[in-house]
Amino acid sequence: MNKGGCIMKSTCSVFTLARTFALGALLTLGLPAQAQTDPLPSWNDGAAKKAIVDFVKDTTTPDSPKFVPAAERIATFDQDGTLWVEHPMYSQVMYILERVPALVKAKPELAKVAPFSTVLQVLHGDRAAIARLTLPDVEKVAVATMTGMTVETFKAEVAKWLAEAKDPRWKRPYTELTYLPMQEVLKYLRGSGYKTYIVTGGGQDFVRVYAEQIYGIPPEQVIGSALGTTYSYAKDGKPILTKAPKLMLNDNNAGKPEGINMMIGRRPLMAVGNSTGDQQMLEYTRAGDGARLSMLLLHDDAKREYAYGPAQGLPATKVGAFTQALYDEAKKQGWTVISMKDDWKTIFSFE
Amino acid sequence: MNKGGCIMKSTCSVFTLARTFALGALLTLGLPAQAQTDPLPSWNDGAAKKAIVDFVKDTTTPDSPKFVPAAERIATFDQDGTLWVEHPMYSQVMYILERVPALVKAKPELAKVAPFSTVLQVLHGDRAAIARLTLPDVEKVAVATMTGMTVETFKAEVAKWLAEAKDPRWKRPYTELTYLPMQEVLKYLRGSGYKTYIVTGGGQDFVRVYAEQIYGIPPEQVIGSALGTTYSYAKDGKPILTKAPKLMLNDNNAGKPEGINMMIGRRPLMAVGNSTGDQQMLEYTRAGDGARLSMLLLHDDAKREYAYGPAQGLPATKVGAFTQALYDEAKKQGWTVISMKDDWKTIFSFE
Repeated sequence: MNKGGCIMKSTCSVFTLARTFALGALLTLGLPAQAQTDPLPSWNDGAAKKAIVDFVKDTTTPDSPKFVPAAERIATFDQDGTLWVEHPMYSQVMYILERVPALVKAKPELAKVAPFSTVLQVLHGDRAAIARLTLPDVEKVAVATMTGMTVETFKAEVAKWLAEAKDPRWKRPYTELTYLPMQEVLKYLRGSGYKTYIVTGGGQDFVRVYAEQIYGIPPEQVIGSALGTTYSYAKDGKPILTKAPKLMLNDNNAGKPEGINMMIGRRPLMAVGNSTGDQQMLEYTRAGDGARLSMLLLHDDAKREYAYGPAQGLPATKVGAFTQALYDEAKKQGWTVISMKDDWKTIFSFE
Repeated sequence: MNKGGCIMKSTCSVFTLARTFALGALLTLGLPAQAQTDPLPSWNDGAAKKAIVDFVKDTTTPDSPKFVPAAERIATFDQDGTLWVEHPMYSQVMYILERVPALVKAKPELAKVAPFSTVLQVLHGDRAAIARLTLPDVEKVAVATMTGMTVETFKAEVAKWLAEAKDPRWKRPYTELTYLPMQEVLKYLRGSGYKTYIVTGGGQDFVRVYAEQIYGIPPEQVIGSALGTTYSYAKDGKPILTKAPKLMLNDNNAGKPEGINMMIGRRPLMAVGNSTGDQQMLEYTRAGDGARLSMLLLHDDAKREYAYGPAQGLPATKVGAFTQALYDEAKKQGWTVISMKDDWKTIFSFE
């Protein structure tokens, strides 16, 4: 998990500074000059890019009336469809389905029981069978594949899957399908003293496996839908935490601000999402005093990524729906809608 | 909440370093020389102090076989009886009891209903009445005084109480009754790249009100027993979070490692507690690979603070009990027991 990287900003600052000072040239300035390079090179100039840059300047320039002390600089990002691709299906749902063969190997009696039998049909090529899977079916498979093992075993299973699984369209690991413009925003915010958090409807333990490696966001800054654990002792007396089928936090809709309050205890200054499940987080963020930035990403680029709404006449979807009501609310409340097509020069780093 | 302070370590490092370099003298060293001052001046030399210093050196010296990258340096501290005084009664219980008159003013019918009537008797000087309060009674009063208001109102009520309430023995605000030797350990750890967390059986929202100001620990690094919130809208349409009587996390005993896994997602390298409620956190911490330090504070100083066990023949207590079984387990498992009497030169900063 990126052990050698420049994760601790304090360490980075010290070494960068030491190197800069070693050159000697900047000594009289007291601090090295800030390079005036564009922090968001993958963004086209426009309202969305301007909103981000203005917000960061407003909240971090010491003599700004909207200045916020570094300790209070919190920004929260939804993950699926906001930081990485969520179509045709959330990566975690693919994980859950693809764990079923191993589950059936351990418990052969499940092979003939729905919904596990249906999942096996889907995996064996009967893509139409996927239509027979209801949300309770997926939840049942989720509980069966994500509980009952130790926290360490779960992490290892997810890491192994991530190293092998590939997105069907780009034929690349899911972890490469992060949006470069959002990666730039995360880095820009952290470079400006912000703590960046993921606040996802997806599984907290699942996202924590890779968030540090692919986004530079450590486990303690990942909030997600969370199953609990049960503390007990292994046969050798060692204490273990076993993933348990008890829902601690349903981190969607109202669960997002509730989860933020529980896990962070401060209201974010900035929040970014892309679907109806993010509305309450954006409302709650925006309702605070001073400078606040709430943003929604609209997937309106069928050519380079996907186009779905149903807002603005885009095709409807059950995966990350952005309704017209949400779009209208964004306009009414002054949230910024990011157009993937118009605002993003580049989408992926591999382009 | 200490907005001007040096809370963000990165900021502190940069300015300290800039100032140091401005002197010019240390330029050739690349980095300023570490002052060889004692990081723990309030500690007497002994096994406990040595264990802390050795542990920090082992985990932070780059060529040490037990070196740990900065991102993984997590230390967790119980609060009541570990970081500040918990006798004769937990501060939060005093808060709950002292909120009852305001509650009765708002709902006069409660004045004649137990346990509220009993609490009023206690507050009116009938100290013996306190013996009639059971744990379910206290929980009932807790729910009545800590739920039903917005998160912001609760914070304001706690802050107001903390500014006025005084400990009965030292006649000082509770917030001044933190242990100086533990404050030194917190600072020493943070100065060595550790993230310091509070993991308390007390109320998460309660401790978050003052933890940043008195310990330098921000809200997002306070884990405690947590009631949930409910998201809704005020009459003016503004979103609000209301404290709700649903227990999200009982952060005692097994709840401590479970809470650590949920809120941090990493196993701590170091954990410190003082009572049976901390045993599982210490076990879980110690069971990890590499250098681990689990410590228990024994209150054996009746003269300068309090003496209670019942371990080692000290008087028994219901508030922060340290049983002989816990003491024996500590010896068996290699946890360090800190003797307040022998290991601490100074207890409070006002001494």
